[in-house]
Amino acid sequence: MHHANEILFSLFIVFVAAQIGAEIAQRLKLPGVVGEIAAGCVIGPSLLGWITPDQIATGTPLDVLSEIGVVLLLFSVGLETRLEDLKKVGKSAFLVGVLGVLLPFAMGGVWAHASGFDWGKSLFVAAAFVATSAGITARVLQELGVLQRMESKVILGAAVIDDILAMLLLGVVVSLQGGQGFDATHLVMVLAGAIGFIAVIGWGGTRVMRWNSTWLEKPRNLHSPLLIVLALCLGLAYVSTLFGLAAIIGAFLAGMIASETRQQHTLEQQFQPLLALLTPFFFVLTGSKIDLHQLASADALIALGVVTLIAIISKLLGGFLGALSLGKTSAAIVGFGMVPRGEVGVVIASLGLAADVFNGQMYAIIVAMSLLTAMVTPPILAWLLRKTVGNEASAQQRNA
Amino acid sequence: MHHANEILFSLFIVFVAAQIGAEIAQRLKLPGVVGEIAAGCVIGPSLLGWITPDQIATGTPLDVLSEIGVVLLLFSVGLETRLEDLKKVGKSAFLVGVLGVLLPFAMGGVWAHASGFDWGKSLFVAAAFVATSAGITARVLQELGVLQRMESKVILGAAVIDDILAMLLLGVVVSLQGGQGFDATHLVMVLAGAIGFIAVIGWGGTRVMRWNSTWLEKPRNLHSPLLIVLALCLGLAYVSTLFGLAAIIGAFLAGMIASETRQQHTLEQQFQPLLALLTPFFFVLTGSKIDLHQLASADALIALGVVTLIAIISKLLGGFLGALSLGKTSAAIVGFGMVPRGEVGVVIASLGLAADVFNGQMYAIIVAMSLLTAMVTPPILAWLLRKTVGNEASAQQRNA
Repeated sequence: MHHANEILFSLFIVFVAAQIGAEIAQRLKLPGVVGEIAAGCVIGPSLLGWITPDQIATGTPLDVLSEIGVVLLLFSVGLETRLEDLKKVGKSAFLVGVLGVLLPFAMGGVWAHASGFDWGKSLFVAAAFVATSAGITARVLQELGVLQRMESKVILGAAVIDDILAMLLLGVVVSLQGGQGFDATHLVMVLAGAIGFIAVIGWGGTRVMRWNSTWLEKPRNLHSPLLIVLALCLGLAYVSTLFGLAAIIGAFLAGMIASETRQQHTLEQQFQPLLALLTPFFFVLTGSKIDLHQLASADALIALGVVTLIAIISKLLGGFLGALSLGKTSAAIVGFGMVPRGEVGVVIASLGLAADVFNGQMYAIIVAMSLLTAMVTPPILAWLLRKTVGNEASAQQRNA
Repeated sequence: MHHANEILFSLFIVFVAAQIGAEIAQRLKLPGVVGEIAAGCVIGPSLLGWITPDQIATGTPLDVLSEIGVVLLLFSVGLETRLEDLKKVGKSAFLVGVLGVLLPFAMGGVWAHASGFDWGKSLFVAAAFVATSAGITARVLQELGVLQRMESKVILGAAVIDDILAMLLLGVVVSLQGGQGFDATHLVMVLAGAIGFIAVIGWGGTRVMRWNSTWLEKPRNLHSPLLIVLALCLGLAYVSTLFGLAAIIGAFLAGMIASETRQQHTLEQQFQPLLALLTPFFFVLTGSKIDLHQLASADALIALGVVTLIAIISKLLGGFLGALSLGKTSAAIVGFGMVPRGEVGVVIASLGLAADVFNGQMYAIIVAMSLLTAMVTPPILAWLLRKTVGNEASAQQRNA
């Protein structure tokens, strides 16, 4: 009985903290997601301690709820994204994806080597600078209602490419660090598998749905399209992890497939309450993972500042250069949209800590960097987008 | 990475199994919930083993999802229940609640004593016969769309009273068994706390909402009524466990409060996708907890048959006698509606096993009895209700 109490209490606390945080942020004209992450930091182990490190570790109920939350979020983003539109921005998205991986990796590696790591370890540290976490940006774009803009399509397409490259890079770095040497054949196989999975699902799945989606309504259950689509979302999220990709990539593809059905609008409405209940767990947990104690020294704070600056500038520059053909403002929006690192950086940092590549402080710095990029991005992105939308509207008025 | 895979896979399997089970059941003209419980039995440790005992233990992610599912289910049932209507059936509900606890306790105790337990242990076994689990019945009533019928109100009112009495009884039995003697003052305090909680929340909460519910829309967030109401649901579910009541009682009260708001209809619609995603976890897990191996002997099966018959007859009789003033058919519906035991019986059986009151086989029998009552009830209840609704409709036609 006591156990059930405890879990219900933590669910309640996380959920309410998210709502209060989001409300305050929105009254300060910030995206709600900033407030949810900040709320996580406040109730987490570093400050109030209302949720403990045990409760947010991998595989705990709160962690699984947060995983379900971000999977559903990326599904709903996919639901607003059509393959046709992604194809139109394919070239820019590809450039953004590639440059957005190479620049952070190069700059991160140089910084690590300059800080005294040998090259093998430096490449490992550099890998933690790479992977963009699409969840934060997707939420901001959804909150502002700009998922239909070209910049949003570029960011989402680039996020898929980013995830493939980051996965490969991690594979290389881990095998180099482990001293197992470099197995090119294996990497090519992994790459082919991931690209094949995305191509088959993205291309084949959308075809099937466009051709005929009435079969979704065949089952007797009243909610049958929703239920089949939820199963598809969970299933592809799982399968994409088998190909070494993030679960959210599979969920995004599932959403993109569902966007071709004629039930797309109903599904979009039905997903709103699901997101309302479950995504707060993802953002609050993101915030609660920041360990402020490890950063309570001038040295650590300076290092954190430098690392975060490098992480932001390198990703921004990669995205900006990749999307330059869209114009400078759009390129800046895309660049900032790619900045958040989120949980992938945290995973790499954990691997590094476990493999003794670096110590606890370095771990805390990399984790804090991942989360700082996630906190810094939403306000800048929202400000840039609001300004651009405003300028376009007044330009239209002038022309009218 | 491997861990995340495993959990996504189990989410997918549970969810898909539930849908397939529900679909088959509905095509066989059975309530969907029967199929979901059966699906749990099939994929659970006893048969296919696609989900393991580790994955369904208390406090695991699947268990917490199932808890959230049943909490949201009872909330949504509360959302269709108004305090006014419950008051109208108050007397019948009270009688059903009291007789529905006393008869199973008495008959269970006599059976246990006749099977060779001393009286102290017999009372403990008897306590496992008592508590009705409202989740299964609520789902059947909701599936058939008969929550507005008088019988449904009686069942729901009686379920609240049943839960209070079962909690008290459990307190008495555990203290007697533990040899701590009988502390009447403590029990009176517990009783007063539980009744006070229900009265204050049920009476006060509905008053506040009826008086003014526009404040629910004050926050900036687009989904604000839903979010506040979800927080209320989780919060009251937690608080009710502090008073020793089941979490679902608090959730039901929260729903009843929300039924007085002017956003009631919107909320009902928004809860549909939440129930579609989360309640399958509750019913599949209920089914997967049946350990068929422990029952693979003639002795065990005979004992299980006797125990289940006693459990069904005693509860049916209690409910039937309590609701006799409503007419025989209605009384039978109420009686069968109270039969499912579900997880409370399982909890008591676990306590009994831990306290060495009985052995593993007795534990398996009590757990299987709890779940058999949950499986047997839905078809009978659905059949009775369909027949009654049909008869009423043809009677109306004849009169017209």
